[in-house]
Amino acid sequence: MIRNTYSSDISFPDIKPLRINKYARIMSTGVGVPKKVMTNQDIIDKYNYVATDRAVQFSIGIKERRWVSEDETFEDLMAEAITQCLERANVSIEEVDRIIYTKLISAQNVPASAVTVLKKLGAKKGIPGFDVTCACSGFVHVMDMALKYIATGDDYVLILGGGVSSTRTQQCKNPSTKTVFLFGDGIVAMLLGPSDTKHFLSSYIFTNHKLYDNAFIPCGTTMVAKGFCDTEDDILTMKIVDGKVILDSAVEYTKMIAEKLLSMAGMTLDDVDYFITSDQSTRIWEAQVKALGIPFEKSLSLFERYGNTVAAMSPLILNELIMTNKIKRGDLVMMLAHGAGASSGGLLFRF
Amino acid sequence: MIRNTYSSDISFPDIKPLRINKYARIMSTGVGVPKKVMTNQDIIDKYNYVATDRAVQFSIGIKERRWVSEDETFEDLMAEAITQCLERANVSIEEVDRIIYTKLISAQNVPASAVTVLKKLGAKKGIPGFDVTCACSGFVHVMDMALKYIATGDDYVLILGGGVSSTRTQQCKNPSTKTVFLFGDGIVAMLLGPSDTKHFLSSYIFTNHKLYDNAFIPCGTTMVAKGFCDTEDDILTMKIVDGKVILDSAVEYTKMIAEKLLSMAGMTLDDVDYFITSDQSTRIWEAQVKALGIPFEKSLSLFERYGNTVAAMSPLILNELIMTNKIKRGDLVMMLAHGAGASSGGLLFRF
Repeated sequence: MIRNTYSSDISFPDIKPLRINKYARIMSTGVGVPKKVMTNQDIIDKYNYVATDRAVQFSIGIKERRWVSEDETFEDLMAEAITQCLERANVSIEEVDRIIYTKLISAQNVPASAVTVLKKLGAKKGIPGFDVTCACSGFVHVMDMALKYIATGDDYVLILGGGVSSTRTQQCKNPSTKTVFLFGDGIVAMLLGPSDTKHFLSSYIFTNHKLYDNAFIPCGTTMVAKGFCDTEDDILTMKIVDGKVILDSAVEYTKMIAEKLLSMAGMTLDDVDYFITSDQSTRIWEAQVKALGIPFEKSLSLFERYGNTVAAMSPLILNELIMTNKIKRGDLVMMLAHGAGASSGGLLFRF
Repeated sequence: MIRNTYSSDISFPDIKPLRINKYARIMSTGVGVPKKVMTNQDIIDKYNYVATDRAVQFSIGIKERRWVSEDETFEDLMAEAITQCLERANVSIEEVDRIIYTKLISAQNVPASAVTVLKKLGAKKGIPGFDVTCACSGFVHVMDMALKYIATGDDYVLILGGGVSSTRTQQCKNPSTKTVFLFGDGIVAMLLGPSDTKHFLSSYIFTNHKLYDNAFIPCGTTMVAKGFCDTEDDILTMKIVDGKVILDSAVEYTKMIAEKLLSMAGMTLDDVDYFITSDQSTRIWEAQVKALGIPFEKSLSLFERYGNTVAAMSPLILNELIMTNKIKRGDLVMMLAHGAGASSGGLLFRF
């Protein structure tokens, strides 16, 4: 039981072995990002901010991010990510047993976007699908979930993370400078399939609900009760109360998760070929890598190019490392994500 | 492969056996509903509708439903349902391995309400939690998910369904008469735990994404792109395009799901002690029971008392049957739910 700064009167669950008799592995990944690249200067010009590209880069490390254009829909990005992912694995959508999307804001609140994208793709089979709300740590939740669906009967599980957070921001006259540079649009798909050998060695997920209101998206019954139609506010974008809490807790939880994942698998950090984590800013990424004492060449941040893509951050990095042949089959990967809630977790797997 | 009215060019997945080596069972249920009972006449008076209680009852079968008061929050109902459920099982929140809430509209979009309720309950352990979006069929999705989490390592999984849909409706001057009488607020909790014997015999879930836009909640990026702050509309309440499609597809899918569940378990309808399904209206419930040819005393609708409580409908009925000693340990229960998406499913289990 580990108790520290962000968990003074809360304990975290013990890690448990994965009781899995049918193994899973990552078949492929795919990405759907908007065509439009928004530089810091583009944002400064759009809203007439008193800021410079250099100051923004210095402050949070970002150069550019993608924002959807008017002719691009949320489902376009989902469909693009899925199509690329399935083509790389040579698997058809009809062979998929389940589709799970860990969302930020969907096109509609109901039905699940995991279902609407099946319509968009013209799927000929009515596979079950649903959306999961878990902010930036959502992808590790649904990876863990996919393993368990495969262990208990499914063959192929398609998972998606990320979303479009700029729609409302682009409409607002004065979005908060605290977040307007931070977020980017983008969706990543991952196909998990059956395997004869064990790829996933350990998995660990927890929350620290003491921090539940440090980052939030207001839109919901609470805000409605206060009459949200009176507001010009960017109610569909994440509000961040204290950025330092996010940085410090990410470092603390990275150490805790790494220790649990490695000890369950009987391994050490030296065995890990690549360390992937959510990079809500360049500093948050650097701080996690330094805290573990891992060489920077064994990790990667895409924050400067894509910003905070919420649940897409960790898998976007995995996709990039696979596509650039840095991660090869058999490599040991530790993949973490931290998010609002606060919810964190990670998996240790051989790719 | 079954093809019929609502699936002319779509097939549905084959049912697969549950590969489960660690069995699960339902430990207990619990309910959180608002104190305020809204009769049809209360609604007619509030909005000055030209209607009568008798006409509303005749048309959809409802007498009353619960609506939250100003001093009742969404988390109050969740906490009430959880507290009742855990007390009945004599299990503490710290013994729970995972908490999953199948939501309609949450208090906030992020973080997950499954996390905020842990804070509300003062939980001393940071157990993982997330929300699932799947409309009225959500509870069968998360029951199926809970079995699989238990099969692969968890001991206790707490699931919740339902929500508060009246918050925005109560603010609107002229909510649609098509839906204002239909929906009620309420949340049901269920605790699943480990078992030495097999309780869950079969499980089946699918979608018909061809019907994805027949029922929907507009709030999301699509609506935002159109500038929702200009509207006085009830954007957080389910819009129903064609009620006949909901009724007819529910009947069609009830027959298909029942056949698959029973054939996988090697049983017949005569073996089933109770048939539970989502009762979006009295007529929709009656039509399903008639389609299966089950005696009405082997089923129950709570629609006239609670209205459409979305993902809470089926478990609310289960809770009622357990509390009135109609369902006893060992009884064979078939529990179905149909919802927007369209997504349907069910489970066959010994209580």
